[in-house]
Amino acid sequence: QAPIRATLFPGDGIGPEIAESVKEVFREAEVPIEWEEHYVSKEIDPRTQSFLTWESLESVRQNGVGLKGPMATPIGKGHRSLNLTLRKELNLYANVRPCYSLPGYKTRYDNVDLITIRENTEGEYSGLEHQVVRGVVESLKIITRQASLRVAEYAFHYAKTHGRERVSAIHKANIMQKTDGLFLKCCREVAEKYPEITYEEVVIDNCCMMLVKNPALFDVLVMPNLYGDIISDLCAGLIGGLGLTPSCNIGEGGIALAEAVHGSAPDIAGKQIQLPCS
Amino acid sequence: QAPIRATLFPGDGIGPEIAESVKEVFREAEVPIEWEEHYVSKEIDPRTQSFLTWESLESVRQNGVGLKGPMATPIGKGHRSLNLTLRKELNLYANVRPCYSLPGYKTRYDNVDLITIRENTEGEYSGLEHQVVRGVVESLKIITRQASLRVAEYAFHYAKTHGRERVSAIHKANIMQKTDGLFLKCCREVAEKYPEITYEEVVIDNCCMMLVKNPALFDVLVMPNLYGDIISDLCAGLIGGLGLTPSCNIGEGGIALAEAVHGSAPDIAGKQIQLPCS
Ligand SMILES: CC(C)[C@H](C(=O)O)[C@@H](O)C(=O)O
Ligand SMILES: CC(C)[C@H](C(=O)O)[C@@H](O)C(=O)O
Repeated sequence: QAPIRATLFPGDGIGPEIAESVKEVFREAEVPIEWEEHYVSKEIDPRTQSFLTWESLESVRQNGVGLKGPMATPIGKGHRSLNLTLRKELNLYANVRPCYSLPGYKTRYDNVDLITIRENTEGEYSGLEHQVVRGVVESLKIITRQASLRVAEYAFHYAKTHGRERVSAIHKANIMQKTDGLFLKCCREVAEKYPEITYEEVVIDNCCMMLVKNPALFDVLVMPNLYGDIISDLCAGLIGGLGLTPSCNIGEGGIALAEAVHGSAPDIAGKQIQLPCS
Repeated sequence: QAPIRATLFPGDGIGPEIAESVKEVFREAEVPIEWEEHYVSKEIDPRTQSFLTWESLESVRQNGVGLKGPMATPIGKGHRSLNLTLRKELNLYANVRPCYSLPGYKTRYDNVDLITIRENTEGEYSGLEHQVVRGVVESLKIITRQASLRVAEYAFHYAKTHGRERVSAIHKANIMQKTDGLFLKCCREVAEKYPEITYEEVVIDNCCMMLVKNPALFDVLVMPNLYGDIISDLCAGLIGGLGLTPSCNIGEGGIALAEAVHGSAPDIAGKQIQLPCS
């Protein structure tokens, strides 16, 4: 059997150590996998306008599967965040973060078992911001029918194929009627195709309150970009932290880029005390 | 001593019952207060473009102090949410929501004691949204130097006068560099005037994770509108729910409009089982 070729971005700080642990896990499990390692460049690649090289992106496109460690975006202007570049260039439209209580890791919650599915390409992450006049700046949140349908479809399909019963769309459409309203409209359309899955809509503030009171109320959650960023971290907190949650970015044509969601943790890098589970 | 005149909006659903309890509390405590009651109208008042009457707003302006129960905005187009109308028309720029564990009300957390201070007039609540082309909608988040300085000043002044030691500015400036960046810049400017208060900046996703892991890490939190909406509900969840948190909207010239933050709870309205503490 030919080995699977997968791209590996060890990343920064604690990243290379995690990457080593990950490789060891796959080796011990005798998964026939061949890693194609790519490091973040020290120079901006003009073809990607970022510190990610064109070759590394091509590698993920070709292999269809990759793994990335934490990437610290160097500070400065004129280039994009590495995480954002990956998501946009590879059109990684859905970010899936399962979150469940780990036996043996005690927190205040012992009944967490939920999946956050985050739209990963638009919303508040459009990068479109400008100063209107001195002292007045604005930022554009973009919601499209195409991206909303696509992530909603992903969420319902995920629910169905993973034995999940409910999809909750998280929004703030009482305030952002047009943008979050469009997102909900798309979720409703997709929900009609999955009559076996219960569909509900929950306002983001209320969702956060309910999550900390009783996370067992939720199953699969689908939402625009920023809400996904916030809620996935909140959920990670319920089970102990960002080092305990896996994350996978899904793109068109089935590309899958799994990632560590925690930071590069320069304070503990090199000490071999990392948890390899992300 | 002349009684204090205060405006009272009993509000909808469970609102009138809460209002009665509140009046009783003030009566028993022998606070010399005279209530000016205003109900939400059944018709849109053209001068406010909402179901709030011009007279009711004038009453708050004149008295400088008011109390409102939950207001359910009737569904339909062409008018604004009642809560938003109050905040905008009365220029209620800071929303203060103290949150602390109540003795006798057991939750997973027993060490909560924090204050969220939310910018209340702009940000994601601008109401500026439009469809660019079919299937593509956008929403404008507006951050101004004036409103950011004003709420930051309120937060630091609050911290100083209430024996608080730390102010954390909550943001997502790693993504929204210009808008949240301006908010942070203003907080930093104000922080310089309060050397006795520790100032820190925390990214919203990380803040939510830390709040559920250990709320004792925080003291006073100041943030743009939507983050305040989200985080204040999350914090309410830590101590048991929205029925347990007070909330006050502060406007220019010292106007103060206290409010119940929970909904109108039509399911329990009329049953006399409300908690009067909000
Ligand atoms: C590092 C940051 C840009 C990123 C995000 O905001 O998406 C992170 O918080 C995440 O959730 O993957
Ligand atoms: C009812 C709603 C418009 C309001 C808000 O989003 O501000 C509420 O959630 C609050 O926090 O007061």
